Amino acid sequence: MKISELSRTTGVPVASIKYFRRQGLLPAGRATAATLAEYGQEHVQRLRLIKALTTLGGLSIAATRDVLTAVDQAHSTDSALGAVSYALPVPVAESPVGDAGREAEIGSAAEAEVADLIAAMDWQTPGTSPHVEGLTAALRELRRLDADYRPGELVAYAELARSIARLDLDRAAAFDEAPEALAEQAVIVFALSAPVLELLRRLAQEDQVRRRIPSLPGDGPRTG
Amino acid sequence: MKISELSRTTGVPVASIKYFRRQGLLPAGRATAATLAEYGQEHVQRLRLIKALTTLGGLSIAATRDVLTAVDQAHSTDSALGAVSYALPVPVAESPVGDAGREAEIGSAAEAEVADLIAAMDWQTPGTSPHVEGLTAALRELRRLDADYRPGELVAYAELARSIARLDLDRAAAFDEAPEALAEQAVIVFALSAPVLELLRRLAQEDQVRRRIPSLPGDGPRTG
Repeated sequence: MKISELSRTTGVPVASIKYFRRQGLLPAGRATAATLAEYGQEHVQRLRLIKALTTLGGLSIAATRDVLTAVDQAHSTDSALGAVSYALPVPVAESPVGDAGREAEIGSAAEAEVADLIAAMDWQTPGTSPHVEGLTAALRELRRLDADYRPGELVAYAELARSIARLDLDRAAAFDEAPEALAEQAVIVFALSAPVLELLRRLAQEDQVRRRIPSLPGDGPRTG
Repeated sequence: MKISELSRTTGVPVASIKYFRRQGLLPAGRATAATLAEYGQEHVQRLRLIKALTTLGGLSIAATRDVLTAVDQAHSTDSALGAVSYALPVPVAESPVGDAGREAEIGSAAEAEVADLIAAMDWQTPGTSPHVEGLTAALRELRRLDADYRPGELVAYAELARSIARLDLDRAAAFDEAPEALAEQAVIVFALSAPVLELLRRLAQEDQVRRRIPSLPGDGPRTG
């Protein structure tokens, strides 16, 4: 199909398609003339994935490119999952200026908390993982707000996170029947299930709050 | 303290403090002269919270204002939790153009999937909840990518989300000893535990992947 039809099929404007091409997110079409290219079903699917990553996944164009590059270079579902995991942006916490002594104390406490957690969970995670650094920064931020986790609380969350990760990996493995869709499986499971999980948590929070208080918007509470 | 000291203490530039004031995120200081105001510990804490929401929480200035307004108007932990829950931005999925018949089919299937899930979980959630709409849009997006959940899979995630929400509410209740910190308890639990949970899930995914494949960056695998 021509670029105009690719645009109609996917709802992505021609200018955006050209931008994604220039940014290396979308492979070239098959050249049929000096200024014409023929696009196929793989371009439709890739454009849908780009849209899903940038809207539902909330990724920037740069992050989307990193993720797609990582999966295009992967050779198996597991290595794709690993590559995507490291290519996804990590939630960041800024380091505020403040009392240097307190900051040092907060920093050591957060590092010890993460090390203890990883040991308690027996997680096989190198210290160089961006997620170790990210979690340490997040815990520092919570300590600054005097909202650190009580003993055992973080482990309780981590146990649930492990159960979720097992579901994620099972889900990725189940897709495996069509190996040519490998790249997308990894992206979908790792990048697009995060917003679904967050929405499920919000619905569950809403339910929990509603069971405690009758004056929320919407219908009244039931017991349970 | 003067605005210059407030800036030094929190690491937030004076211009940003003035901007947050104008945007209604930060309450006024106590006026001590026509152009001078005195700020207190509550301003330090509020600025730390604004920083945490906009960095770790990933919220925009507008979303931060919505959340802080919601909590400032709440009268109890539970109503603060409800208000924050509705004020937080919902992950969005765009509706692509495409075959109208297929889109209608995808739309009905996603709506039925969400309705079935809420019934199966006995979740007390009004149809007007932004999270119902958000989840439906997310599931439509996954269906468009042919990555919909298999039967039972979504319920398995939802069960874990419920366990997480219970931990969240327990955590919020535990903070309750200092009622003047009510606003922040709700925000911290609902807005700032999402990135922590996501990091825990990523660490757990990393562990799960690493147990299956030895060639990832970092140290080698162990069995488990």
